[in-house]
Amino acid sequence: MFRLDKENRERYTKNILNALYENDKEEFRESYLELHPSDQVDIFITLDKEGRERVYMFLEPKEFAVIFSGLYFIHQQVCIEELSDEYSSKMLNNMFTDDTVNFLKRINQEEAKHILDNMEKEKAEKIQVILDYDLETAGSVMTYEYITAFPEETAENVLDKIRREGSDAEIVYYTYVIDRKGYLMGVVTLKKLIIADPNDAVRDIMHKHIVSIPADMGQEDVGKIVQKYDLLAVPVVTEQNHLLGIITVDDVMDIIELQTTKSFGEFSTVKDATETDTSAFTAAKKRAPWIVFLMFAGLITSGVIGQFEETLESVVVLAAFMPMLMDSGGNVGTQSLAVSVRGLALGTIDVKDLWRMIRKEFSTGFLIGFVCMVLISILILIFYGNIMLGVVVGLSILVTLSISAVIGLTFPLILNKLKFDPAIASGPFITTINDIIALMIYFSIATTFMNYL
Amino acid sequence: MFRLDKENRERYTKNILNALYENDKEEFRESYLELHPSDQVDIFITLDKEGRERVYMFLEPKEFAVIFSGLYFIHQQVCIEELSDEYSSKMLNNMFTDDTVNFLKRINQEEAKHILDNMEKEKAEKIQVILDYDLETAGSVMTYEYITAFPEETAENVLDKIRREGSDAEIVYYTYVIDRKGYLMGVVTLKKLIIADPNDAVRDIMHKHIVSIPADMGQEDVGKIVQKYDLLAVPVVTEQNHLLGIITVDDVMDIIELQTTKSFGEFSTVKDATETDTSAFTAAKKRAPWIVFLMFAGLITSGVIGQFEETLESVVVLAAFMPMLMDSGGNVGTQSLAVSVRGLALGTIDVKDLWRMIRKEFSTGFLIGFVCMVLISILILIFYGNIMLGVVVGLSILVTLSISAVIGLTFPLILNKLKFDPAIASGPFITTINDIIALMIYFSIATTFMNYL
Repeated sequence: MFRLDKENRERYTKNILNALYENDKEEFRESYLELHPSDQVDIFITLDKEGRERVYMFLEPKEFAVIFSGLYFIHQQVCIEELSDEYSSKMLNNMFTDDTVNFLKRINQEEAKHILDNMEKEKAEKIQVILDYDLETAGSVMTYEYITAFPEETAENVLDKIRREGSDAEIVYYTYVIDRKGYLMGVVTLKKLIIADPNDAVRDIMHKHIVSIPADMGQEDVGKIVQKYDLLAVPVVTEQNHLLGIITVDDVMDIIELQTTKSFGEFSTVKDATETDTSAFTAAKKRAPWIVFLMFAGLITSGVIGQFEETLESVVVLAAFMPMLMDSGGNVGTQSLAVSVRGLALGTIDVKDLWRMIRKEFSTGFLIGFVCMVLISILILIFYGNIMLGVVVGLSILVTLSISAVIGLTFPLILNKLKFDPAIASGPFITTINDIIALMIYFSIATTFMNYL
Repeated sequence: MFRLDKENRERYTKNILNALYENDKEEFRESYLELHPSDQVDIFITLDKEGRERVYMFLEPKEFAVIFSGLYFIHQQVCIEELSDEYSSKMLNNMFTDDTVNFLKRINQEEAKHILDNMEKEKAEKIQVILDYDLETAGSVMTYEYITAFPEETAENVLDKIRREGSDAEIVYYTYVIDRKGYLMGVVTLKKLIIADPNDAVRDIMHKHIVSIPADMGQEDVGKIVQKYDLLAVPVVTEQNHLLGIITVDDVMDIIELQTTKSFGEFSTVKDATETDTSAFTAAKKRAPWIVFLMFAGLITSGVIGQFEETLESVVVLAAFMPMLMDSGGNVGTQSLAVSVRGLALGTIDVKDLWRMIRKEFSTGFLIGFVCMVLISILILIFYGNIMLGVVVGLSILVTLSISAVIGLTFPLILNKLKFDPAIASGPFITTINDIIALMIYFSIATTFMNYL
């Protein structure tokens, strides 16, 4: 059990490193290649330049291809610089198409062209097709390493084919059934193949109702479909149902995970602008519209404050608590937002029960607001010696937090009803709405009590 | 192609509904059961009470089990109320353990006990074991429907077993090899089994270096391991390596996805408090500490404003632009945060290159700030007729956005260095830091130009 037993793991790693630095090729190859590729990668990235060059020497390009595929892009760049053209083209020829593409689409076009020129012509052409698909589409993450069969082949034929070609395929559990022109007719699982009578024609045992996706489908939707139908891979087809490639579940998992960080980007209104390799000018061009739009929305708060200029002029110290009040409202609102978004995702929110949820969220906001009210009133009394100021700020925080909680709960539900993704669309708007409400509450209360301040 | 062709799909659905409401059991069963379970679910949830009761009548408990497993919890509750005890216990006996557990852990303990009492005793006991694991651990999402073999069995034996037991298993592509006492010895893939000589002993073709996880491992870590090693399922074992159950990749994808909404919760400092079924008091107790803590942090802004009370007293209108300025700084900061967090997740950030990234992010913030400066200055000149006020606010937004961008970029990198998860920990703090900096810049500039305002 190499992987999860830390002590064992350390000893094993030490043996491998010893073999490497003592130039014991045999020993190194035996113990290193036995590891899961993911563990090979973990060890490789700890090496210095000398260590890396030994690895290139000890391993065949085909063996190193597996490690290279698992590296982060910044490490891949280092390797490519260190490797001879011959070694790296052999290595790239032996990688799964999707892994090669993954690397090529991140380097500049000239370098990519140089690398493609050094590869097998047929493979290079196939890769170019994938590179030509828009980033973020299904086409750009598909791969060609799958097994196909014709409808008249027998289960036994296909099993033989899997035995022969299986080690070059990214997935052997699905065989895609196509006609002579390459149109997708169905899929047969390895399970069906071994259960079937060896002489059964594939046509009679395949699933005909199959899930397939167009090459221009967004990756996010691909993730949703694979998840919905619990697939291990999904075929990509043309409009005419011509089989183009497949996307496997491990890539889909990576997509779902990247989606997380992307949602994070969208949440902060920076969709498509999180790439780290664009110029400042391009990034600014993409990001500025939102910031400007939200700046204008933010000017509504200036209007609200303007309405209460008289109050503010007589009691300037009120300005000191504006940011704290707005932030607290925003924080409680975001918490309620999270409750709401998570409830929607988990399916635990029943809209029929809305009234009860609103009451509950209001109570929660009220209770938190009450605690804040007591604390802030005491603090203001101590530091400003002004009990009425404490009452005004305290009451404001109580009312603001109660209302912010309800807004945070209901806003995503409304967005969801309107078919927007609540996790993405809620963020920036809720801040502005909360700010406006917090300021109106604050200055209304302050104006009412102005004579006592 | 039922699934993705909308028109076709609508016609097909209409046929099924017609058959259902015209009481044509044969026709309904034939067309409905042909669908993927996920599509069966989609149709089922559109039905009214009458429709649902017809479905219970037309389908065997075993057939309905598949649909029930795919329903959201709120729909499951409705069904359980409508179903007879006999039908529902038969149905639950026919569900995969993990799906049954998923339902039972959400209803109250009394109801769960009642349901377990009506189930097959052996199955109920096994389910109870899983229910006893802490939520969010590997143990609580594992299932028992997998295939095992002894090391001395031949490949042919095991293939026969898969043919016989395959339809009851959640995954047939991995066979777990155990000794007579139930200790996990290795795993053999279906691919290996069909490639191997039929007389080969499983012992000789199994992988011995296998990845397994303890039952108390957090679900998030399970997701990471399955993703790292590209597994279709992972075995759960005791400390002594006794095989307890497995977790399949489709459940792992659901975990990764829920993780997204959970991160969203953590991002808003509401970890563990997003459950919708707790009381307002419990929720407030969990959520209040953060709000109170951030309220105190927010008071630093009051201190900053207090420092500039004189300036504010002479030019009260300055207060009107505080919220807009703070929000804009916050928005740019969050964008840069997203760039940074995504870069860390994708591995495209090279810390050696930090200085270049800072310069780039500063330039981006400066460019956005420049656009905002021009626009806001013109607006203030038009609406307030005060050119110097426009200059002060404009200059402040320029400086604030440039600095916010750099903070948004570097803060996650620092957190990452300190081994905190930057996606989670950055959110609330960055707001407060940004607010303080924005206010200091604003009032410093305003104080400098005070005589001209």
